[in-house]
Amino acid sequence: MQTSWQQQLRSIVGANFVLEDAAALLAYESDALTLFRCQPAAVVLPQNAEEVQAVVRVLHRFQIPFTARGAGTGLSGGVLVPKGGVILCLSRMRRILSIDAEKRRATVEPGVVNLHLSQQAEALGLRYAPDPASQTVSTLGGNLAENAGGPMCFLHGTTTHHLLAVDVVLPDGSREFWSSLPEQADDLDLRGFLCGSEGSLAIAVGLVLRLIPLPEQVITVLAAYDSVPQACSAVSAIVAAGLRPVALEVMDQKAICAVEDSVYRAGLPRDAGAVLIAEMEGPEALLQRETPRLEELLQKFQPLHFERAESAEQRRLIWKGRKGAGGALGQLAPDSYVMDGVVPRSRLAEIMAYVEEVEASTGLPVANLFHAGDGNIHPHFAYDARDPEQCRIVEEAGARILRRCLDLGGSLSGEHGIGLEKQHLLREQFTASELALMQRLRAVFNPQNLLNPGKGLPMPRGCAEAFHRHRRYAHE
Amino acid sequence: MQTSWQQQLRSIVGANFVLEDAAALLAYESDALTLFRCQPAAVVLPQNAEEVQAVVRVLHRFQIPFTARGAGTGLSGGVLVPKGGVILCLSRMRRILSIDAEKRRATVEPGVVNLHLSQQAEALGLRYAPDPASQTVSTLGGNLAENAGGPMCFLHGTTTHHLLAVDVVLPDGSREFWSSLPEQADDLDLRGFLCGSEGSLAIAVGLVLRLIPLPEQVITVLAAYDSVPQACSAVSAIVAAGLRPVALEVMDQKAICAVEDSVYRAGLPRDAGAVLIAEMEGPEALLQRETPRLEELLQKFQPLHFERAESAEQRRLIWKGRKGAGGALGQLAPDSYVMDGVVPRSRLAEIMAYVEEVEASTGLPVANLFHAGDGNIHPHFAYDARDPEQCRIVEEAGARILRRCLDLGGSLSGEHGIGLEKQHLLREQFTASELALMQRLRAVFNPQNLLNPGKGLPMPRGCAEAFHRHRRYAHE
Repeated sequence: MQTSWQQQLRSIVGANFVLEDAAALLAYESDALTLFRCQPAAVVLPQNAEEVQAVVRVLHRFQIPFTARGAGTGLSGGVLVPKGGVILCLSRMRRILSIDAEKRRATVEPGVVNLHLSQQAEALGLRYAPDPASQTVSTLGGNLAENAGGPMCFLHGTTTHHLLAVDVVLPDGSREFWSSLPEQADDLDLRGFLCGSEGSLAIAVGLVLRLIPLPEQVITVLAAYDSVPQACSAVSAIVAAGLRPVALEVMDQKAICAVEDSVYRAGLPRDAGAVLIAEMEGPEALLQRETPRLEELLQKFQPLHFERAESAEQRRLIWKGRKGAGGALGQLAPDSYVMDGVVPRSRLAEIMAYVEEVEASTGLPVANLFHAGDGNIHPHFAYDARDPEQCRIVEEAGARILRRCLDLGGSLSGEHGIGLEKQHLLREQFTASELALMQRLRAVFNPQNLLNPGKGLPMPRGCAEAFHRHRRYAHE
Repeated sequence: MQTSWQQQLRSIVGANFVLEDAAALLAYESDALTLFRCQPAAVVLPQNAEEVQAVVRVLHRFQIPFTARGAGTGLSGGVLVPKGGVILCLSRMRRILSIDAEKRRATVEPGVVNLHLSQQAEALGLRYAPDPASQTVSTLGGNLAENAGGPMCFLHGTTTHHLLAVDVVLPDGSREFWSSLPEQADDLDLRGFLCGSEGSLAIAVGLVLRLIPLPEQVITVLAAYDSVPQACSAVSAIVAAGLRPVALEVMDQKAICAVEDSVYRAGLPRDAGAVLIAEMEGPEALLQRETPRLEELLQKFQPLHFERAESAEQRRLIWKGRKGAGGALGQLAPDSYVMDGVVPRSRLAEIMAYVEEVEASTGLPVANLFHAGDGNIHPHFAYDARDPEQCRIVEEAGARILRRCLDLGGSLSGEHGIGLEKQHLLREQFTASELALMQRLRAVFNPQNLLNPGKGLPMPRGCAEAFHRHRRYAHE
C-alpha cells in the first residue's frame, strides 16, 4: 500500500511538526496583509536543509503546491498557498552558524530573526544593515524573498546589497549554491534574481550575509513641521546639499497621534503636521563637520520643534516612536492595510497630496509613514475587514495610489513585494515581453509552478479566480 | 532585391564603421590569450545603444553568430566568434554620461576605460574600486562580462559588487533594464547573473556603477622574503590577525627580475624569492592603530628587505612594478599564457609548489603573480606560439594546474572567466544538473545561441571541434 504524502512528511520531520488541525492552521491562513486568506492543507516545520529537501521531494512527487515562510510578517499576501497546498514554515531553522569577524560575514539559517543577527554581531563590532520595521520578528529568509529594506537602507542598500551567497533547494528537491564570493567566482550568481523573487524560484536554506562595522558615532535629530510638504522640502534640501544621512523618515500627524496614544509613546509633538527623523552615522570627525550643516537645513524650513538626541536613550525613544508606529496604527481599527509604493523623491509632495485626496474619497482614515530618502511611501488604511464594503474600498484605493505612483515615474513596490496584492497591476508597469521573460526565467527553476504559485507575476485567468475567492470579503 | 547583411550594417553605422578588410580584421582575431584565434567575417563599431539594437536585429534576422567586445584584453578567449561571425566592438561608446556625487553613482557607456572612470571621479572625492591589471586599457563592459577583479578587490569585492544597474540589448535586439536600485525595486535584478556571463546572455549598453570615497589615507608596505611559502605564511598571519588590508599581492623571483629588466623597473630586490605588497587604507586614526600591527607581522617572518612607502611617489613606484609585471613578463618570450585559478587561501603554498613541479616538467619558464588575499593565482607561461609543441605543452600544463586547484577545493577562474580556454574542464567542477541549469538559463535569453556561442559552458562535440580548429597550433 502506498503511504500518503502526509505520512511521508511525518516520517521526515516527526508527527509533531506536521500541522493539520484546523485550529493550528489558522495562524497560517494569511500573512500580515489580512485582505487575503486561504488555509493550507498542512504546515510542515523542518529543522534543517536536508529535511527541507526531503519534504520538497515528497511534495514534488505528489504534485502538491507549496510555499516556504518565516514569521509571516509579509505585507503582500506572498505566503498563501492555493487550496490543498502545503506551507513549509522555516522558523525552527534559526541557528546563526558562524560570524566571521575577519571577513565580515555571517552564515545563518533562514529562520533567524533579523534583529538577532545584529545583536549577536554587536560584540564583534559589527551589524546587519537592512532593518525592516518588522525586524524584531521577521526572519532573514523572508527578508530575502521580499528584498526587505528599512530606514537605514537609504544609505546602506536593501537585502540584495548584503546577500553574498545563498544555499537553496529547488522545487524538485535538488540543491544549489549561488554565490558572489571570490572563492566561488565560478558559481552561478543568482543572488540578485532570488532576492525579491517572493519565494517562487527556490527555498533559501542557508544565507551568507555581509556585516558592516558599527558606526563610530550616531546622531539622530527630529524636526517637527507644520505639514508633510514642508518635511518633504527639507528632505530634498538635505539630499541636494550632498549630505548622506543613514535614514530620512517622515511620519504624518495621524501616525504621530497614534504613536502617542499607544505603548510606543515617544514624546512626539501632537500638534505637528509631520515629523522628520534624520540620522547621520560615521567617524566622529565627519559628523562634527556635517551635523551642523544638516541642522542648519532642517532649521531653514522653520520647524515647530527641533531636537537632537543627546543620549542613546533619547535616540532609542525617537526610534521607538518610528518603529512602533506600524503597531500603534494597527490599534486604530480592527484591521489595517499597509501599502507600499515608490515615487522619485522629487514627487513625494505630489503623491502625498494624492493620498490625501484618495483618503477623503474613501472616508477611511489613512496615516502615513515613509522612507523619504528613497521615495518609498507606506500609507496605512485603518478599516474593518468584517465589512466587505470597506475591504473593497481599501483595495481599490490602494490600486489608485499605486497607479499614480506609476504615473509619476515610480514603481509598484519598494520593499513589500508584489505578492497577491499587486499582481493585477503588473501589466501597467511592465510590457508583455518583459513579463514573458520573467515567466520563462521562473519556469527554468519552477517549471510546474508548484512552488508559490500565483505570486509576483500576472496569473492566468483560472488561477486568478481561484485566488480571488480567497479574498476575505468575497468568501465570507 | 534583398540587401545583404553587410549593406544593412553599413547603413546603420556608416561604411567607415564596418570592417571587412583582412588587415583590419587581424586585430580582432584573438583577445590577449593568443592560443585561440579566429578571424571574424566583419567587425562593426556602433556608436550608441540604438545602433547596437539595430545591428543586433539584422544579425538575428540573418542568423549570424556574434559577440561584443571592448579592448580585447580578456585572457580566456571569450571574444572569438566562429567562422562567419561578426564582432560588435563597443570602444566608440566611451562616454561617462554622469557622475552623481550625492548618490555615489556613475552612469557610463560600456566602452569607457576602467581607469578613466576613477580619474573623472577623483575631483569629487570618489573612485571606482575594481582595478584589474589591465585597467589602463580594459573597458567597463568587458570588466562586467568577466566580473573583473584586481588587487583592491580583496577588500572591496569584484565587479558584481559594484554594478548597481545595467541597460542591456538581448540577442533578438530587444532592450531591458536590470536594476537593484531602490527606485527600481520591481525591476528584474539579473546583474549578478550577467556579471561574469562572458557576454553570452545580453550586451550591456549602459552601466550604473557604485563609486566609493577616496580613502583618507593609504599606506603601502613591501616586504621581500626568501621564498614564496614564506610570503604566503605572512599573508595568512595578517588575515588571521583580523587586519583588513585593501590588497595583499605576491610576486615571485621570476616576476621580480622581469620587472627589473623592463621599463617598469621599480627597484624591487632581485635576490628575493618573493615580494609581498600589502596596502592599508582608511581613516588616519585607523591606520595609525593598525599599520604597526601589520608591520610587526611582516617583520616576524624575517624579510630580507622591508619598506614603507613614505610618499605618493614611492607608492606609485611599488604599484608600477606590480601592475607592470604582466607587460614585463610578456617580453620574456614571443607569447605568454597567463593563467587564472583559485584555491582556498590556506592552500596557497601547496598550489605554488605544484606550479613549480609543473614548470619543471614542461621546461618552460613560469613566473607567478597572485592576489594572495583571495587565493587567486596567475602563473605566467612564457612560450613561443610558432612552435606547435610548446602550445600543446602550455595548454596541458594549464589544465593540470586548474585540476589541482579543483582538488584543493578551489575553482577554475578567479577573474579571467571560462571562455574557450577552460570550457572542457567545467564538467570537472560542476555536476551535469548544474550545467543543465546554466544551459536552460542561457537559453531563456539566447535561445538560438547566436550571441557568443561556445563560451563559458561545455560545447556540443561538433561545435567544440569547430573551435579546436581555431587553435593556432592546430591550424598553422
